[in-house]
Amino acid sequence: MNDRRFPWLMLVPRHPGLLEWHHLPRQQRHQLLDEVSVLSEALEDVTAPDKINVGALGNLVPQLHIHVIARTRQDPCWPGPVWGNGAPELFADDEQPDWLPALLEALPVNFLDRTNDNE
Amino acid sequence: MNDRRFPWLMLVPRHPGLLEWHHLPRQQRHQLLDEVSVLSEALEDVTAPDKINVGALGNLVPQLHIHVIARTRQDPCWPGPVWGNGAPELFADDEQPDWLPALLEALPVNFLDRTNDNE
Repeated sequence: MNDRRFPWLMLVPRHPGLLEWHHLPRQQRHQLLDEVSVLSEALEDVTAPDKINVGALGNLVPQLHIHVIARTRQDPCWPGPVWGNGAPELFADDEQPDWLPALLEALPVNFLDRTNDNE
Repeated sequence: MNDRRFPWLMLVPRHPGLLEWHHLPRQQRHQLLDEVSVLSEALEDVTAPDKINVGALGNLVPQLHIHVIARTRQDPCWPGPVWGNGAPELFADDEQPDWLPALLEALPVNFLDRTNDNE
């Protein structure tokens, strides 16, 4: 997510019109959780947060999407949720998060390719 | 949850000291999602919400717990999250949620017994 305040990832299963996690067939529900878990673990290893927040809300954008966010006691929304809580701080156009290279390095080999193949 | 504003359930895996969903072994991670899914589906059937919100936050209480909440466009926090958003409206001491009997009826046979056996 384009918000410097937190290391914040989002997963969007490529099922147009899908609204709820539990609407997926069981195996795909589990696969999505496995992918959330891989990203949670990588974020935890790389950013050493106080807590990982996982959320499937979708009140504003109903298409199913899962937030995975690394939270710290020093972040500007702690201990509240990040959603609807203050204004995002955008990255510059040519800027990438300082934690991103290490996160990509921490992912299993071909993780992004594999998830992209699982349409 | 003791808050009349929303049909709001919480799942607490009985693993003392467990902090994160992805810290569970894979099979138990999946089991927890299956239980979230059963409750999401039952809440959806019984309360006809506009959206189910699923969240594992734990910034205030770090022990792993999963929120499953039925949201409607008419609820007092829509479209924001429920956490840290306004004051809870408590049930009376002898009151139960009007949706609870139908929810219990909608659960698979022995669902609560089974989940209680899975310590």
